[in-house]
Amino acid sequence: GRVLRLSPPESLLLGFTLLCLLGSGLLMLPGAATQPLAWHQALFTATSAITVTGLAVMDTSSFTTLGQVILLVLIQIGGLGFMTFGALTLLLLGARLPLQQQTLVREALGETSFGALSQLVRMVVTFALVVEALGTVLLALHWVPELGWSRGLWASLFHAVSAFNNAGFSLWPDSLTRDAGNPLVTLVVSGLFIVGGLGFVVISDVREKRRWGRFSMQTKVVLCATLAVNLVAMLALGCLEWHNPATLGGLESLGDKLQAAWFQAVTPRTAGFNSVDTAAMTDASSLLTMLLMFIGGGASSTASGIKLTTFIVLILVARAFLRGTQPAAFGRSISQQTVMKAIAVALSGVALVFVTLLVLTITDSRQTFLDLAFESVSAFGTVGLSRGITEELSSPGQWMLILTMLLGRVGPLSLGYFLATRRTGGMRYAEGHIQIG
Amino acid sequence: GRVLRLSPPESLLLGFTLLCLLGSGLLMLPGAATQPLAWHQALFTATSAITVTGLAVMDTSSFTTLGQVILLVLIQIGGLGFMTFGALTLLLLGARLPLQQQTLVREALGETSFGALSQLVRMVVTFALVVEALGTVLLALHWVPELGWSRGLWASLFHAVSAFNNAGFSLWPDSLTRDAGNPLVTLVVSGLFIVGGLGFVVISDVREKRRWGRFSMQTKVVLCATLAVNLVAMLALGCLEWHNPATLGGLESLGDKLQAAWFQAVTPRTAGFNSVDTAAMTDASSLLTMLLMFIGGGASSTASGIKLTTFIVLILVARAFLRGTQPAAFGRSISQQTVMKAIAVALSGVALVFVTLLVLTITDSRQTFLDLAFESVSAFGTVGLSRGITEELSSPGQWMLILTMLLGRVGPLSLGYFLATRRTGGMRYAEGHIQIG
Ligand SMILES: [K+]
Ligand SMILES: [K+]
Repeated sequence: GRVLRLSPPESLLLGFTLLCLLGSGLLMLPGAATQPLAWHQALFTATSAITVTGLAVMDTSSFTTLGQVILLVLIQIGGLGFMTFGALTLLLLGARLPLQQQTLVREALGETSFGALSQLVRMVVTFALVVEALGTVLLALHWVPELGWSRGLWASLFHAVSAFNNAGFSLWPDSLTRDAGNPLVTLVVSGLFIVGGLGFVVISDVREKRRWGRFSMQTKVVLCATLAVNLVAMLALGCLEWHNPATLGGLESLGDKLQAAWFQAVTPRTAGFNSVDTAAMTDASSLLTMLLMFIGGGASSTASGIKLTTFIVLILVARAFLRGTQPAAFGRSISQQTVMKAIAVALSGVALVFVTLLVLTITDSRQTFLDLAFESVSAFGTVGLSRGITEELSSPGQWMLILTMLLGRVGPLSLGYFLATRRTGGMRYAEGHIQIG
Repeated sequence: GRVLRLSPPESLLLGFTLLCLLGSGLLMLPGAATQPLAWHQALFTATSAITVTGLAVMDTSSFTTLGQVILLVLIQIGGLGFMTFGALTLLLLGARLPLQQQTLVREALGETSFGALSQLVRMVVTFALVVEALGTVLLALHWVPELGWSRGLWASLFHAVSAFNNAGFSLWPDSLTRDAGNPLVTLVVSGLFIVGGLGFVVISDVREKRRWGRFSMQTKVVLCATLAVNLVAMLALGCLEWHNPATLGGLESLGDKLQAAWFQAVTPRTAGFNSVDTAAMTDASSLLTMLLMFIGGGASSTASGIKLTTFIVLILVARAFLRGTQPAAFGRSISQQTVMKAIAVALSGVALVFVTLLVLTITDSRQTFLDLAFESVSAFGTVGLSRGITEELSSPGQWMLILTMLLGRVGPLSLGYFLATRRTGGMRYAEGHIQIG
């Protein structure tokens, strides 16, 4: 009985871990890489792909086409989620989901109605494939003329899938830097990862309701917050980097600069492509980027981080307390349970980043504190931006990052589940007084 | 009407600001310093003293005895709190407190009963003076034989007052490094600032109830958390620095090492003395110290930071959520209002540190990210530990720190009050659903 009865977060973590091990085995197949590959490099790469992080201990170009196809499959599986795929497999086999799995899937997708589940899973996959196909066609308009049919189409497909899944893997060592000034590439790629990062619940709400007034609070919050955070980040990063000759200052036209500022503002949550050199950014921009990476995208999306909704709920609660009102948004109040969940997620996230950084400062004391902090947040948020130290890290440091990516993707919340013994029920106590601040 | 009717946090901030300006004027008196003093240096020093921070743009030894006496008075006023002193002044004048002032003092001391107020203020001052006198006598046992009567007594008084108020000012440029191995100095000084950092509400509870079973939840939480955090920090910092020749590794005996480890573990919350070179600590220890500085001491104490209670409440809420129970400690539940307040305080704290660090990375890009981060957290938590860059900072950078110390002391919460327009009452909405994590 007990051996197979895992809790949802336990199953999720176990599933992702097995997938990472399987992926590392596939990447070590003869003919997958152009150079010899140590097992921990293969595991790092597979984990990075499945958790859709994009941190790389070796260039994607050092994999053969077979290796790159394996990577893309791992990215697709990871992005749509182990849970969605698990449910899909069962549904395709004609099986009814056992109650345990239903809870799993419900947890992964955040859907409250069991009935809508089967429909939702089909919708997720259909939507992903349609958007990725569309992205491929648009990108092909640029890359087929440049690279020819076969290489051009492959590049378009790879980057479309990688972008929609917020994976951040690119076929080129300098990511999308060469296309920093190409509006087709920057807008299509950023459009793909923003849509992928909204979350399927939001997308299905938009598709169903079609009008703003009918949208759920969740949809309104995610759409507004995405717009606001992206614009503020673009303004701030634009100002900080405008005269930096190694980044925006080195671009020629105003249009190129604006495009690059936009791209650097939206990629940290949590796409991980870059169109300027991340290591050349100022310390101020790096700090701002770390905040964005920590926040991440929408819940049950291809993005990670503590999630935009968690961040917004904490701000709404703080604001409500200072105003002496109840926390609410768009005419709907936020439940105490939601507030507690937001605290649990944010605190687990801070703890995971803190522990990762602490371990890295011990294992890799040669690296600067900023580079290590950036790497830790990037791994937690499964972003994949790096100030260029991933390959140089010590072996224990890379193992720490493998663990961080995995836990960052499965969710800080699941980590918390393991740390605390759950009880059913629980006593009710009289209220005590405690001073805060 | 409106002009004089300030909200509690507005009065608090205004009062502290005026005190800082007054203090800077006093420090610029002829004969206060042994070297010419620019106004912004005087203001920085006065703010550092009143907010009991201890960050220094010039050595305390470059002030004359007059200057040092002024510093000590500023520290004492700051430590006991502008609010306590305001109420005390009114009480000594025989005046009844107007309702507005009552709220102010209640806010500052966290006491819920109006009746106990007058008693509390007297108790605060008496207790402070008794403990400081005791500390002076104990320290004099070491310093009078070493330095002679007048210099020895003055050193003892100065360090006792500075320690009880968690001010971190020392008469010596290298703080207490020369006495790292002296048990009398390290234990008396750390004892003073730990007691000062518990908070007067806890102290009065202990004095009144005398038995563990009768203590309030607040008292039990603060006492347990202080013990636990101090021991964990000592263990961790001890391990990280044991073989560092520039810190613990350079000390001769096991006793010296243990003493120094204890001192470095307890001083970040938020005393600010140091008995080993802060700049020579490993990056890992610096990161851990930053966490301790951010947490700080007990509420309504001489310590700052987000406060131990805030930190513990957030952890209790996260744990309760994961266990599916209500947040509680020692058989008392934690109210929703308390949880909201904890979020407001912690989030304001993170925001203040973030903005300070962002500004410093722009104004002082020559300094390393770690040094600037350390300085920002130290100013927010009014700790006063520094990796040695305070004097080298640019003038705008020092102005930013003045502001951070002031806001860090008056409380992240007060900052929040200014940012948000308060409403009385507020609508109740139907509950909405929002996904977290
Ligand atoms: K990514
Ligand atoms: K201090």
